[in-house]
Amino acid sequence: MTFGTKSKGVYAIAATPFLEDGSIDFNSVDSLTDFYEQSGCTGITILGIMGEAPKLEPDESRAIIKRVVSRAKVPVIVGVSAPGFAAMRSLAKSAMDMGAAGVMIAPTPALKTDDQIVNYFASAVEAIGDDVPWVLQDYPLTLNVVMANSVIAKIMSNHPSCLMLKHEDWPGLEKISKLRAMQAAGELREFSILCGNGGMFLDFEPERGADGAMTGYGFPDMLTELVGLFAADKRDEAHDLFDAHLPLIRYEQQLGVGLAVRKHVLKRRGVIASDAQRKPAQMLTPKARAEVDYLLERLAKKDARAALKA
Amino acid sequence: MTFGTKSKGVYAIAATPFLEDGSIDFNSVDSLTDFYEQSGCTGITILGIMGEAPKLEPDESRAIIKRVVSRAKVPVIVGVSAPGFAAMRSLAKSAMDMGAAGVMIAPTPALKTDDQIVNYFASAVEAIGDDVPWVLQDYPLTLNVVMANSVIAKIMSNHPSCLMLKHEDWPGLEKISKLRAMQAAGELREFSILCGNGGMFLDFEPERGADGAMTGYGFPDMLTELVGLFAADKRDEAHDLFDAHLPLIRYEQQLGVGLAVRKHVLKRRGVIASDAQRKPAQMLTPKARAEVDYLLERLAKKDARAALKA
Amino acid sequence: MTFGTKSKGVYAIAATPFLEDGSIDFNSVDSLTDFYEQSGCTGITILGIMGEAPKLEPDESRAIIKRVVSRAKVPVIVGVSAPGFAAMRSLAKSAMDMGAAGVMIAPTPALKTDDQIVNYFASAVEAIGDDVPWVLQDYPLTLNVVMANSVIAKIMSNHPSCLMLKHEDWPGLEKISKLRAMQAAGELREFSILCGNGGMFLDFEPERGADGAMTGYGFPDMLTELVGLFAADKRDEAHDLFDAHLPLIRYEQQLGVGLAVRKHVLKRRGVIASDAQRKPAQMLTPKARAEVDYLLERLAKKDARAALKA
Amino acid sequence: MTFGTKSKGVYAIAATPFLEDGSIDFNSVDSLTDFYEQSGCTGITILGIMGEAPKLEPDESRAIIKRVVSRAKVPVIVGVSAPGFAAMRSLAKSAMDMGAAGVMIAPTPALKTDDQIVNYFASAVEAIGDDVPWVLQDYPLTLNVVMANSVIAKIMSNHPSCLMLKHEDWPGLEKISKLRAMQAAGELREFSILCGNGGMFLDFEPERGADGAMTGYGFPDMLTELVGLFAADKRDEAHDLFDAHLPLIRYEQQLGVGLAVRKHVLKRRGVIASDAQRKPAQMLTPKARAEVDYLLERLAKKDARAALKA
Repeated sequence: MTFGTKSKGVYAIAATPFLEDGSIDFNSVDSLTDFYEQSGCTGITILGIMGEAPKLEPDESRAIIKRVVSRAKVPVIVGVSAPGFAAMRSLAKSAMDMGAAGVMIAPTPALKTDDQIVNYFASAVEAIGDDVPWVLQDYPLTLNVVMANSVIAKIMSNHPSCLMLKHEDWPGLEKISKLRAMQAAGELREFSILCGNGGMFLDFEPERGADGAMTGYGFPDMLTELVGLFAADKRDEAHDLFDAHLPLIRYEQQLGVGLAVRKHVLKRRGVIASDAQRKPAQMLTPKARAEVDYLLERLAKKDARAALKA
Repeated sequence: MTFGTKSKGVYAIAATPFLEDGSIDFNSVDSLTDFYEQSGCTGITILGIMGEAPKLEPDESRAIIKRVVSRAKVPVIVGVSAPGFAAMRSLAKSAMDMGAAGVMIAPTPALKTDDQIVNYFASAVEAIGDDVPWVLQDYPLTLNVVMANSVIAKIMSNHPSCLMLKHEDWPGLEKISKLRAMQAAGELREFSILCGNGGMFLDFEPERGADGAMTGYGFPDMLTELVGLFAADKRDEAHDLFDAHLPLIRYEQQLGVGLAVRKHVLKRRGVIASDAQRKPAQMLTPKARAEVDYLLERLAKKDARAALKA
Repeated sequence: MTFGTKSKGVYAIAATPFLEDGSIDFNSVDSLTDFYEQSGCTGITILGIMGEAPKLEPDESRAIIKRVVSRAKVPVIVGVSAPGFAAMRSLAKSAMDMGAAGVMIAPTPALKTDDQIVNYFASAVEAIGDDVPWVLQDYPLTLNVVMANSVIAKIMSNHPSCLMLKHEDWPGLEKISKLRAMQAAGELREFSILCGNGGMFLDFEPERGADGAMTGYGFPDMLTELVGLFAADKRDEAHDLFDAHLPLIRYEQQLGVGLAVRKHVLKRRGVIASDAQRKPAQMLTPKARAEVDYLLERLAKKDARAALKA
Repeated sequence: MTFGTKSKGVYAIAATPFLEDGSIDFNSVDSLTDFYEQSGCTGITILGIMGEAPKLEPDESRAIIKRVVSRAKVPVIVGVSAPGFAAMRSLAKSAMDMGAAGVMIAPTPALKTDDQIVNYFASAVEAIGDDVPWVLQDYPLTLNVVMANSVIAKIMSNHPSCLMLKHEDWPGLEKISKLRAMQAAGELREFSILCGNGGMFLDFEPERGADGAMTGYGFPDMLTELVGLFAADKRDEAHDLFDAHLPLIRYEQQLGVGLAVRKHVLKRRGVIASDAQRKPAQMLTPKARAEVDYLLERLAKKDARAALKA
């Protein structure tokens, strides 16, 4: 399984597990890596926004990369977005040296015009080197940078080393359709599209042309099953599965509190030892935790994977 | 049924129906008003953000107010948010003169500090008059103004004429809990809380302390039923109903395209004659329309109200 | 003197004079109009952001347009920026019917991508009619919409009825040079460029290719003299004059408080009866007023026009 | 001379000198450090926004801190703003270990409500340790975070280790007056206020209560002279000096291009060897360079320090 313009399936956005004292829980890093692979994920993305990357020291980031890359049998993508190109360059170099399959880059929030965005990625590619495969992250809801299809097309044309779009515009279904139409018309080269936003529209994105998902929902095994059902043209079954999970997917898709839900679910499933976050952390209140548990309980009636272990 | 600090149930955020040529479809205004009432709505809110208010001439706004107020038996709230206090004052005066129960005011997007927000509403109340009942709209996702609970509390303390909070922060469940806790502790006077955001969290908001919903989802009859189930402590039944609708609720909750979904559903349900919008309009593509229809079809298996008439 | 793609000189951004009770001071509207003409202004722009336009009722806006248009012998431009195209259309129609030379339109703050900006102005032109001459306002500091030169070029190409750019990007000198270079290379049609930002860079803008200024600095007579000195190639004299005024220009160029400075200066010069503003108003504190008066006093040693009358 | 709540004078915001090949020019770091001291600066701030800090590798940042701290006889403040508290903690620790007098922290741009800002600085102080002296940077123009006086007061009350406010709100004169009034009334403890924004209002800030300036204008010797004139109550002389420099101060106060002006001036004055910037760099065009040189030429007639050496 390789990382390329034809990549399909589910790339898990990995959480970063901590112990209660705030130190990195490397045992849970291992079990989480194994869990993603056993769930059928075709890749793992680490040090993304949801991975609490800015809360890590540079040495810690490198330690996590080393741990995951040396253990995983699937391609590992490393988030290298940074406020300056110097940090981006050195982290990308470290990641590739340790065996990462590629890196992921999001636009810096200050970008305004189409040209500023295009130029930013030109500088980023110059910084990391044009031989380093990378993923373009399109995430306006958090980053406040809106990339028109024409901008994405220009970046893809300028940089053959960009192999994949992490799509998380919202609303975003038409964006997928239009990019695929441009490719079908021969106006745009091939690249993979994996969708984020917690999977909130994964019941329609594959039919629009997405190759799968790149997100951190606590049930990656459900995500891979869902993408498989679409690949097998089992539309109704796919929607049945999706609809069963949607209440939880929706609950998790809350900025800030979403990571707490995700870690809580992973802990309940026995994958990580603690749901601790480094500061600044937005933890679940008792009421919120009870709500999530109630959703899990309801989900378990339709999907045995949600049966609580603890 | 009156509009006050104890208001409960569902206030429908009314769409504004147009004919294909862009003129106001007053027959559909009537049928929509009737439909909201028959659906069990305890109030109707017109000229909100979703009501295409900025696309109307002042005379048209007044004509719609007159039409709805004179027909409806439930309280009618009129959105009067405006870039200046002069327009806000005159529209509020017109609305109250015609018999509206109150007005709704959102913060202007330029506000930054807590004090700026508090002062803005002081000026707004001075403009409309402190005898005019009003709803405070808290909608950060679109307006980019984040109101802390302490700010909401201060506005409520300063202005007894504010009777209701339209809550659509996201994430927002803890906000409801905290405001209700402040009231329980005697630190904050009573007011009604109705929730927006298309109903995306209406399966938990009532238990957190919300009095109901103020939103424009195409199945207001489902919203009133849902709020009723919570009032009757039928939690599981409420979730069953909610979960059946969530795929469509989620699809509708897309900025821009959401209004098109809403008008499409209302048209399919035979409530309005046309799904036309005034420019700038974001219409459904054929693919999107087919997706909505597929969701309606699936929903109809669980809720007969979704059976397509057309 | 007409309004067109070859317009030169100074278009005054007119303040809106109020009496102490908040009503419009039409006598001062007259004297202000006369003052701008006597100062050598080649045009007057009313109802701009600095003209407190959002604080006016629609009828008041129309009364001001009528008053100024019927009195002025120079072209009058009317700001018609509005949150919706309906209000823009009707105000533009009223203005043109009363004899305005054209209208001015700024982008709505929500615009993000290049295409969104281009499309916004296409809709605006459709709303006001493609026979109405207009000025494109480029004001990122306040409106948060950054227009690349390619975007301005596209708008100008799409809409022959756009005759002028009100330039107030900051930094903005290169923007003027590049637009003029595009025109020199035959890639872009002719249009007038008048600069805003309170005149803060008017010592270099004419040499970069600007045709003059459109701003509301309290000494329009100095602005016209300055533009004249540049036209006569008297560079050093122009800078001497500019540098004498820069401390005051700089003081006036403070968001919010700038209008108070401007009205204070106009009142001290005997042009308007009162420096009252409608709410929300940011008035000068006694300390600030003393600072402005001190700057006027210092300026008066170099420019007799600054000698205080009061 | 120490860094404390009574600090006065001018803290230079240091540029970071590079050689043409992009490597750090440590000889120029030395000469720049000497120059700031010889100019009468009472402190030096390194690795600020204008110091191209995000373009440096962590090791490079530490090398610069070491070089400046070991050479300077005045207190050195180190900018440690970072997207995460881990990086902030480790950089602050390194800086203090090497002998820095303190650190400077700006709010992260995502902060919205008053409480979010207050809490952010609580977390920052927890990260760096409450024994590390620090400067609070208030810079809304670039960071988009507006701090009310009540917020600044709360941060100062919460954290005795905050010794100084870097004030660069705009408009900002009233802010200084109000903070000083709160202190005079005994509502707020003592702290130093040094003003930024390139010195654009340094002709009035000392009289409002500022203790001096913290900015990187290419003539720090003029800034110290100016602050000295105010301390000696020579108001008119102070304004004469300020006004002579204002055209250049104003030109330098352009976001993005300002750093290029600053480095150009420092190079012309013989202080640094090259005006090279690391990417992304906004360099002076030939026209802009000629404009700056013309302003220097004009300035030299009034202030011999501006006479060009090259």
